[in-house]
Amino acid sequence: MNTKTTSKPSWKHRLHEIIYEADTPAGKLFDVVLLIAILASIVFVMLESVESIQKKHGDLLNIAEWIITILFSIEYVLRIISIKKPLKYVFSFYGVIDFLSTIPKYVSIFLVGSHNLAALRALRLLRVFRILKLARYIGESNRLLVALRASRAKIAVFLFFVVIICIILGTVMYMIEGSENGFTSIPRSVYWAIVTLTTVGYGDIAPGTPLGQLIASVIMILGYAIIAIPTGIVSAEMSRTKVHTNTQACPSCLKENHQDGADFCYHCGTKLNE
Amino acid sequence: MNTKTTSKPSWKHRLHEIIYEADTPAGKLFDVVLLIAILASIVFVMLESVESIQKKHGDLLNIAEWIITILFSIEYVLRIISIKKPLKYVFSFYGVIDFLSTIPKYVSIFLVGSHNLAALRALRLLRVFRILKLARYIGESNRLLVALRASRAKIAVFLFFVVIICIILGTVMYMIEGSENGFTSIPRSVYWAIVTLTTVGYGDIAPGTPLGQLIASVIMILGYAIIAIPTGIVSAEMSRTKVHTNTQACPSCLKENHQDGADFCYHCGTKLNE
Amino acid sequence: MNTKTTSKPSWKHRLHEIIYEADTPAGKLFDVVLLIAILASIVFVMLESVESIQKKHGDLLNIAEWIITILFSIEYVLRIISIKKPLKYVFSFYGVIDFLSTIPKYVSIFLVGSHNLAALRALRLLRVFRILKLARYIGESNRLLVALRASRAKIAVFLFFVVIICIILGTVMYMIEGSENGFTSIPRSVYWAIVTLTTVGYGDIAPGTPLGQLIASVIMILGYAIIAIPTGIVSAEMSRTKVHTNTQACPSCLKENHQDGADFCYHCGTKLNE
Amino acid sequence: MNTKTTSKPSWKHRLHEIIYEADTPAGKLFDVVLLIAILASIVFVMLESVESIQKKHGDLLNIAEWIITILFSIEYVLRIISIKKPLKYVFSFYGVIDFLSTIPKYVSIFLVGSHNLAALRALRLLRVFRILKLARYIGESNRLLVALRASRAKIAVFLFFVVIICIILGTVMYMIEGSENGFTSIPRSVYWAIVTLTTVGYGDIAPGTPLGQLIASVIMILGYAIIAIPTGIVSAEMSRTKVHTNTQACPSCLKENHQDGADFCYHCGTKLNE
Repeated sequence: MNTKTTSKPSWKHRLHEIIYEADTPAGKLFDVVLLIAILASIVFVMLESVESIQKKHGDLLNIAEWIITILFSIEYVLRIISIKKPLKYVFSFYGVIDFLSTIPKYVSIFLVGSHNLAALRALRLLRVFRILKLARYIGESNRLLVALRASRAKIAVFLFFVVIICIILGTVMYMIEGSENGFTSIPRSVYWAIVTLTTVGYGDIAPGTPLGQLIASVIMILGYAIIAIPTGIVSAEMSRTKVHTNTQACPSCLKENHQDGADFCYHCGTKLNE
Repeated sequence: MNTKTTSKPSWKHRLHEIIYEADTPAGKLFDVVLLIAILASIVFVMLESVESIQKKHGDLLNIAEWIITILFSIEYVLRIISIKKPLKYVFSFYGVIDFLSTIPKYVSIFLVGSHNLAALRALRLLRVFRILKLARYIGESNRLLVALRASRAKIAVFLFFVVIICIILGTVMYMIEGSENGFTSIPRSVYWAIVTLTTVGYGDIAPGTPLGQLIASVIMILGYAIIAIPTGIVSAEMSRTKVHTNTQACPSCLKENHQDGADFCYHCGTKLNE
Repeated sequence: MNTKTTSKPSWKHRLHEIIYEADTPAGKLFDVVLLIAILASIVFVMLESVESIQKKHGDLLNIAEWIITILFSIEYVLRIISIKKPLKYVFSFYGVIDFLSTIPKYVSIFLVGSHNLAALRALRLLRVFRILKLARYIGESNRLLVALRASRAKIAVFLFFVVIICIILGTVMYMIEGSENGFTSIPRSVYWAIVTLTTVGYGDIAPGTPLGQLIASVIMILGYAIIAIPTGIVSAEMSRTKVHTNTQACPSCLKENHQDGADFCYHCGTKLNE
Repeated sequence: MNTKTTSKPSWKHRLHEIIYEADTPAGKLFDVVLLIAILASIVFVMLESVESIQKKHGDLLNIAEWIITILFSIEYVLRIISIKKPLKYVFSFYGVIDFLSTIPKYVSIFLVGSHNLAALRALRLLRVFRILKLARYIGESNRLLVALRASRAKIAVFLFFVVIICIILGTVMYMIEGSENGFTSIPRSVYWAIVTLTTVGYGDIAPGTPLGQLIASVIMILGYAIIAIPTGIVSAEMSRTKVHTNTQACPSCLKENHQDGADFCYHCGTKLNE
């Protein structure tokens, strides 16, 4: 407030510092308050959906949600004002999430029920990594993402096969079991095949005929065996990402695979180039 | 059409180019149209099995399926005509799939219900890899297959043990629980044991006696522990396949599979080329 | 029969060859017949337990089982006669299994229902590895056993923790949910905790209160996360067993970790010692 | 008793030897008796919760529990007396467990039902490792803990993502399925999402609409694929812990964690001792 008297850029700069950074006490305070507000808003949306609580404290929850929505709106506007390239923020991952977290309550005036979309605010919790300066956690999550991205193609192929298998097995079960055992249509049977192959097994649809149970057994054992595949892919990928972190080659003996942070060749003792 | 006036081999050659290859614009167009037709045909078969949709749009779906079946028939005939060795195609993996994808609708004239087998068309989707020239995905899927083939014996032994364990545990549960808890026969109890060991757990059959629940607990923990085995097998296998990234062949003895960074042939000691 | 006229040891020797070995045509025939008899006997026991089949073909199945039991009895006696150290066979793994596979039908004369124990005959199927000379499969299964034995201690510790966690969580759920939601006693709640932690999830008992569902969610996520532990143990163990297969060290540069079957050092090209 | 006549420190010392150590015959006997008492007390608490047993043998079980509680109380007091720094024991892991194992029966005089907390005694079973001098098992369990601690951050990030995914998917399902299919509130829908993603699949709540089943299928396949992540993390971690088998320390710069087979320090280039 008292910075308003100074030049505008400085005022913007200070606002940017508070909102986007977490090094100053004011910035830290802002981030902690924001996190609490996000958590509270998620809890409010959840509680409102519980009928008994809605009946008792509906008005209170409604007011609380409006307050949080207005606070989020102010924060969103301030974020746009205080940044140099507002469009870049608006279309960034966090910008889109922030917008989607703010809008549902306004939309709910015209469209009943849409305020449940406020649960998207859960994505704002991802900020926790940035806010709490959990550099190590970000590093870990990046390494996870790298390993996942590297095994993306293999996992896509695998899931593609799983879906094709489920379509075929679902159709076979539809023909064997029929409507009387709950396999009323092919899409529903494919749904059952997915429920079974992934070892979820609700039991809302279960085979009743001996032949159907035999095929179900085969699907289950298949699912039990092929769960090994995505696991094997990711395991191998994560083991691999660790080995290839140091790309140096010894200038003398050309040995590679040096340890991270090595200054000298482990084999011949020559000084390694940076 | 206009190529018909030229010599026959050239006409065949052009047809082959369109159908079997995807480098020319015509070939690409053919492949994309084919993929859409396959997807549409699968959706039609699925929708037809849903009673409410069948009642409303049954005739429409029937006509759509006949159109696609006739198109597939023409494609099948063209594939046979345009290839040099028709029999090789007919008995190839894709040839069999193409035949099985086309035939159900014709059979359904004589045999009600058999048109559901058209869901086998889902296997035609595997063409997507070849069509979209997803060489990388094919490479990945090959590496998956190599790893699986290498661990085939171990996985077979593992599944053999799982089946034997399920037969014995199923029988024991049949004797303990009896008909009143749903364990009406040994095959049904074996089915239950498989449902439990694979952690699917439908709940259509569940132990009711304390002793039965104790044994069920043991089976579950067993299943929870031994799921590690196929995973461990595939993980180890996929880690191993990474060792064979060295594509050098010894200039002297032509041995391959040299270690990464090897300078000399492990077999004859000849210096390897870079 | 015609060998009876020769000296007794030779007669015994020939019987031993037929029963215990699979190199001669007679031995092979014996083994194949035995395997078929074992499979048939298991199918018979299973079918007999199905009420509808039992009513129709009960007498037939009873006779078939008696024939197989008598055949197994003869085989068992011949095995004892033809071997040099009968006691060693009787108390060996296969000896005990053979005895337990033969006895249930005799016991069932005095004790109704005990003939179901004949399902133990499934263990006789393990002979298939020895009979079909599936040396490679035996090798694989041995490597599996070695990896499992090596990780025995770790898996035991892990399962011990799982059981303790289930006892405590089961008790907590018993106090929260109570009898009205199916948690009628602590043992039953512990059973539920095991069903949940192992991700089996029958649904015969499911939490009804919000607090119970919250704790159940924690148990599930816990179970989802800790399934990684036995898998990690076995994976690491199986990867390890493969690395240490070549124990050679280069006599010149002392490099180790040579490829299997390497004759020359991959680093300096020196001939490796056998 | 007879040691009371000697000096007090010696009497305390002897008591300490019996209670805290397991090298002398008296110490061993004490530990075995303690283990049996712990196991018996857990069984008693469990049996008491079973209504039919409670009705028949309630008084007996009550007396048995009081005896064990008094024995545990005496043991707890003796442990405090015989140790040099009583407060260190009282606030140690085992000290807290011992206290919590003893107190529930006393509290149950005032607060009905609280004696079930005695199931916490299960944690006392962890003593089995120390008591039976299972050094190897402790070693294994330590390695497990090291691997888990090392992958703590990654697993936390993973579980954080899982929870956020479940909140969002649960909300979406609440809006699609609604109360008529059991999705009565957002918390309940999030509970369902966790049940599904972790492949537990009770079936107490199951999607009824086609769209809901489609989304459920996506969640299941997602859950089936991402179970690979914690497994991959732990596998990679456990494989890694094996890499640090080189126990050399550089004689010059004292750096450790050298590569297996390293001849020179990776940090300062000094020749390493064998």
